[in-house]
Amino acid sequence: MERSGRSEPMPTHALTIPTPGRGFVDVTAPVAEVVTDTGVDSGLAHVFLRHTSAGLILCENADPQVLRDLEAWMERAVPDGDPLFRHVAEGPDDMPAHVRSVLTGASLTLPVRNGRLALGTWQGIYLWEHRAHPHRRTLLVTVLGA
Amino acid sequence: MERSGRSEPMPTHALTIPTPGRGFVDVTAPVAEVVTDTGVDSGLAHVFLRHTSAGLILCENADPQVLRDLEAWMERAVPDGDPLFRHVAEGPDDMPAHVRSVLTGASLTLPVRNGRLALGTWQGIYLWEHRAHPHRRTLLVTVLGA
Amino acid sequence: MERSGRSEPMPTHALTIPTPGRGFVDVTAPVAEVVTDTGVDSGLAHVFLRHTSAGLILCENADPQVLRDLEAWMERAVPDGDPLFRHVAEGPDDMPAHVRSVLTGASLTLPVRNGRLALGTWQGIYLWEHRAHPHRRTLLVTVLGA
Repeated sequence: MERSGRSEPMPTHALTIPTPGRGFVDVTAPVAEVVTDTGVDSGLAHVFLRHTSAGLILCENADPQVLRDLEAWMERAVPDGDPLFRHVAEGPDDMPAHVRSVLTGASLTLPVRNGRLALGTWQGIYLWEHRAHPHRRTLLVTVLGA
Repeated sequence: MERSGRSEPMPTHALTIPTPGRGFVDVTAPVAEVVTDTGVDSGLAHVFLRHTSAGLILCENADPQVLRDLEAWMERAVPDGDPLFRHVAEGPDDMPAHVRSVLTGASLTLPVRNGRLALGTWQGIYLWEHRAHPHRRTLLVTVLGA
Repeated sequence: MERSGRSEPMPTHALTIPTPGRGFVDVTAPVAEVVTDTGVDSGLAHVFLRHTSAGLILCENADPQVLRDLEAWMERAVPDGDPLFRHVAEGPDDMPAHVRSVLTGASLTLPVRNGRLALGTWQGIYLWEHRAHPHRRTLLVTVLGA
């Protein structure tokens, strides 16, 4: 199997995303733009969050109540200030943020077809800030394929 | 962008999976068949669900009680008709389906070795329908490697 | 960077990880070593657990209390010996281990930049043993890129 024409590495692209504190930032458009810019026609796009107190998810993108309800469920399941936790030096929202990050995951792998992200009609990519205060989060986007 | 050695892009393959409503559909065999058909010897297979109210998981494939118990746990953790939710126009199972989908994830990346999916002995790939009623779900399978 | 000789498939590398029973094993170093050994400069590393009763997560790597608190949260959310479960032949920790594995996931895809895993400063890769007793777990590491 000869692959002599695949010469240069496809660089990983970094995106910096400011967050307003706990809640969701729709990052679908900037990620899609990175994918288109690579010129890859068919393959995979990987989006990676370099943090352990925020998450990356796919979620319904039509009704904002869905995100509101998702946050409400998570606040009940992993409440801030839970006396169960000992890692409390960084605030009552810090350990819950780590648990949430494990539950939601910190990376997404997405298909690329015809030079574009092949998401379903109702799928948006959201950075879910789990800390109470605003942060600057770094995403690495890597695209493999041909 | 010259790609003379890697001739045609590896196409993403679509599978349509009918579901019986809430519950599990074993999709291991159709996914494995797509992988074998690509002729890729070593690399990665990515399976992507283009929906936000169903999930894709790896689960024990020997005892059907495991799937039954998994569903029972999820019904208790994310109950239908929960008064916490405001996104209720599409039915009492709709918002729970979105929460479940975030918890279970909508894609899997799997290793390919010797031309086959390299799952563990007890690992099956399941499409987990989170809506109460039957649906037709689309999976995109992408295989990268050599 | 000339890689014209990259013709043969990139083999998947297997790691065997003994676990002490329920708890965490930091596998960041052995995974990073496999990545470096492949000579891939830019791409993706995929780590796959061939089991359905353990998980693979990214978590904060500085304060051991974070892992302790994560385990405490999970023990409350998915308690051993829960009367909800019928799959009990293999012990009170077995079905909870399957549920935990679905929640935490069994694989991670990570970016590779400049020949190294591009994790965030505070991100470690942990194999989370969900069974009470020690096990030997197999990880498959696959690296794609150029």
